[in-house]
Amino acid sequence: MNWLLLFVPVAVGLEHFAPERHLLIFLVSSLAILPLAAWMGRATEHLAERLGEGPGGLLNATFGNAAELIIAIAAMRAGLHDVVKASIAGSIVGNILLVLGAAMLAGGIIHREQRFNATGARAQAVMLTLAAIALILPAAYRSAVGAGAAQALVLLSVSISIVLLLVYGLYLAFTLVTHSSLFLGSHAPADEKAHSPPWPAPRAALVLGAATAVIAWMSEILVGSIQPTARAFGLSSTFVGVFVVAILGNAAEHATAVTAAMKGRMDLSLSIAIGSSVQVALFVAPVLMLVSLVLGPAPMDLAFPAGLVLIMLLSVLITGQVAGDGRSDWLKGIQLLAVYVVLGLTFFFLPDTAPR
Amino acid sequence: MNWLLLFVPVAVGLEHFAPERHLLIFLVSSLAILPLAAWMGRATEHLAERLGEGPGGLLNATFGNAAELIIAIAAMRAGLHDVVKASIAGSIVGNILLVLGAAMLAGGIIHREQRFNATGARAQAVMLTLAAIALILPAAYRSAVGAGAAQALVLLSVSISIVLLLVYGLYLAFTLVTHSSLFLGSHAPADEKAHSPPWPAPRAALVLGAATAVIAWMSEILVGSIQPTARAFGLSSTFVGVFVVAILGNAAEHATAVTAAMKGRMDLSLSIAIGSSVQVALFVAPVLMLVSLVLGPAPMDLAFPAGLVLIMLLSVLITGQVAGDGRSDWLKGIQLLAVYVVLGLTFFFLPDTAPR
Amino acid sequence: MNWLLLFVPVAVGLEHFAPERHLLIFLVSSLAILPLAAWMGRATEHLAERLGEGPGGLLNATFGNAAELIIAIAAMRAGLHDVVKASIAGSIVGNILLVLGAAMLAGGIIHREQRFNATGARAQAVMLTLAAIALILPAAYRSAVGAGAAQALVLLSVSISIVLLLVYGLYLAFTLVTHSSLFLGSHAPADEKAHSPPWPAPRAALVLGAATAVIAWMSEILVGSIQPTARAFGLSSTFVGVFVVAILGNAAEHATAVTAAMKGRMDLSLSIAIGSSVQVALFVAPVLMLVSLVLGPAPMDLAFPAGLVLIMLLSVLITGQVAGDGRSDWLKGIQLLAVYVVLGLTFFFLPDTAPR
Repeated sequence: MNWLLLFVPVAVGLEHFAPERHLLIFLVSSLAILPLAAWMGRATEHLAERLGEGPGGLLNATFGNAAELIIAIAAMRAGLHDVVKASIAGSIVGNILLVLGAAMLAGGIIHREQRFNATGARAQAVMLTLAAIALILPAAYRSAVGAGAAQALVLLSVSISIVLLLVYGLYLAFTLVTHSSLFLGSHAPADEKAHSPPWPAPRAALVLGAATAVIAWMSEILVGSIQPTARAFGLSSTFVGVFVVAILGNAAEHATAVTAAMKGRMDLSLSIAIGSSVQVALFVAPVLMLVSLVLGPAPMDLAFPAGLVLIMLLSVLITGQVAGDGRSDWLKGIQLLAVYVVLGLTFFFLPDTAPR
Repeated sequence: MNWLLLFVPVAVGLEHFAPERHLLIFLVSSLAILPLAAWMGRATEHLAERLGEGPGGLLNATFGNAAELIIAIAAMRAGLHDVVKASIAGSIVGNILLVLGAAMLAGGIIHREQRFNATGARAQAVMLTLAAIALILPAAYRSAVGAGAAQALVLLSVSISIVLLLVYGLYLAFTLVTHSSLFLGSHAPADEKAHSPPWPAPRAALVLGAATAVIAWMSEILVGSIQPTARAFGLSSTFVGVFVVAILGNAAEHATAVTAAMKGRMDLSLSIAIGSSVQVALFVAPVLMLVSLVLGPAPMDLAFPAGLVLIMLLSVLITGQVAGDGRSDWLKGIQLLAVYVVLGLTFFFLPDTAPR
Repeated sequence: MNWLLLFVPVAVGLEHFAPERHLLIFLVSSLAILPLAAWMGRATEHLAERLGEGPGGLLNATFGNAAELIIAIAAMRAGLHDVVKASIAGSIVGNILLVLGAAMLAGGIIHREQRFNATGARAQAVMLTLAAIALILPAAYRSAVGAGAAQALVLLSVSISIVLLLVYGLYLAFTLVTHSSLFLGSHAPADEKAHSPPWPAPRAALVLGAATAVIAWMSEILVGSIQPTARAFGLSSTFVGVFVVAILGNAAEHATAVTAAMKGRMDLSLSIAIGSSVQVALFVAPVLMLVSLVLGPAPMDLAFPAGLVLIMLLSVLITGQVAGDGRSDWLKGIQLLAVYVVLGLTFFFLPDTAPR
């Protein structure tokens, strides 16, 4: 797949010399991201093997979401709060439904049944429920109070952001320090390790860093082309934020989680997929909110549109059920993917002018 | 109970010679259905024993829902989309709350605690959550877009129907082929089998077929009498659809599931009750939607009224909790039945003119 | 902490000689409640040890909620239905999130992981889901029918109250008679019991009764001062009902549940916290509804404001996840407390004039 890396210079060239070819830029930069995500996944997995599965999974999620944070900050500075919120919601939903669904399906085709550490998965699912509640309440507040209370809504959003960041810090202490053993999963069989010895940590870190930087660059080029492309296809900006930006932003998690599931390492897979959603909800979202106070142009509240609240709540609901019993099979993958498709269809048919 | 079969010719006679006696027709056809449902249950259980519990439970659910499909198609062709939707929602809710609740209560009075295969039950509960999400979204879409987007709503409903049917097909492959062992429950004690040897498959199939045919006939007579009877009692058509049509349509499941639970075969019981809800949500509902495109008079969308969305969501929520831990006792039965009663009371007090 | 008992006569004196010093009365009566709650907790724990953990936990919940029942009846007779509903919702939510959260956090700091009887906890969580459904439906009914159907809403509320009381009676039979073994938890280590032998039952009962009586007295003084104090601080009456009245009314449960968790008796802790929420939802709420028919001034329906419905539903949702797997750690405590804080922040920013 490495030949797709040729699209990196092509994307840069198009951006400079033919900036009006939005659809072409969109396609080229998307294609360029794919091999980068694969390299990122490979490097992350090697580094993860050096670090152990818990921190490794967290590492995966951190680097997957770095790209999203950069994209979202760019959109926020352009005042596109709707796109930022859509990409936050899409990333939470996409990691759970698309990434975890694809991983469980791919893993389930190879392995009849895979076991994973249910206690760790449940702790993450509760964390997501907590985050969903925290991201539902500002919307409920706005619907109760009306448009007049914009300032109180920002104050509420700031308060909730601080609570979420505190909880996230404690959650990291839990997963990495006091209860790290809950997040150590079943290891890959020894023979498989034998014929692919993990890279040295510095090499893995270097590849990871380089791939991250270029992904971020490609992502910015891509973001600029998304809205004009979407308009050309008659799609709403919410659909694009939820289902296009988030898929590309999560490509790294996607590749790594699916690969891990196929290798029988469902614990790493879950750690990546759900952990990434947790990180977006408890870290990326509040950081973006707080950064908007400084970088402007206007403070971004955490009141998500009703449609986004609904899909976050429904996704979290089904995740709790799917991840709670410590086993996965291909049907679970199908179930998660089906929910993703149905959500996607609904937003696909939503006209751009409708309240979201 | 076989003497109630005498009501079959009485119902046919009344329908022909005194079609204006709606209440009488209603009562007579309802009473006629009871022994038929019992025979159907008996035949199904014999056939199920021949087939093994997984396919047997599915067989139960299929034949229980054949009656409902016929009733719903008749209502649909008369343009009564509200009644069709109410009976779909009522069937999903009734199988979970009334049938499973009664089975757990009856089984729990005899057995202090019954164990069942939690993995299979959880897979079905997730399927129901998926179905609930799929049936919530068209309503959310309509509420976001307003009444103007009827055509897009039909397109969305068609797309969701196709997704649901695909998932249902894969679910059948899962339960019957790749993971059938998850749906094989504890078997009845040998001595009980000894004094009631299963009928030969052809005999069981014949009894099943005949009972099904006559139930379907009685159901059609009954349907014609329901609305005038309801009007005479001041009930809303939604209440009648959810709590009258669905109870009668599920009489077979009801009888078989309760009998199975009392015999200590909680796995068969769950397979029937939840399996039947799954089939209505993932098979009957989308089939009805797609059939409405052909048989008319107008295409039926999948946007359920808000009240029906609410009760489907709440029922699915409590089912996940009740079925998830692999054990049942009488209190669980009471809990499910209490939710059913509370839902019934709310719809009972709902005037016919209110938005549902 | 016993010197705080000096505030009991001070509160009585202020109430008589300086009734306009609302803030002072508020603070003094609150401080007076703390040692009383501690004594109540101590007496209850001694009595609980004599009775065994199941009935002991129920005893705790009963006496904790006696105070709330008295406060709520006083508010109801003054026609403050909004405050009554807010304190019911606040008590359900507070026992789950604040009391259980604090207990799991305090217990988790001392013990790395505590196990509890998941079957009993799940039965209680389902009971809460059932109660949440029953308390959501009248609000849904009112929103469907509009303000015109006040009489039907009272009828519906009476019917639902009777169902809830019946279910509560059956639940008591389940926990105390037919399945009491599910609610017997791990016992405290023998050596700890050795150096604090349980009081004789009559002494424990006497202390319990006296503390209850004085708490009730203090609570009435406190209630009179809450609204003027709240107004002085610009808080809404809903915020005060949910987060002030309920915290004080649950002080006894709070102290006992936290103490039990720190002593490694997580089963008693859960039994108190969730059991108390169950009792408020299935016993206190319907009793208050039915009592309002007799004591007036006007019948109180069970249609909670939308905001209270939302927080009850969200709290019940997360409780099912947290209590379902039979283990607790400090992160679970943090998660529950964080949800409580986020809910509190939202209501804190809600202006008094907004629809709740």
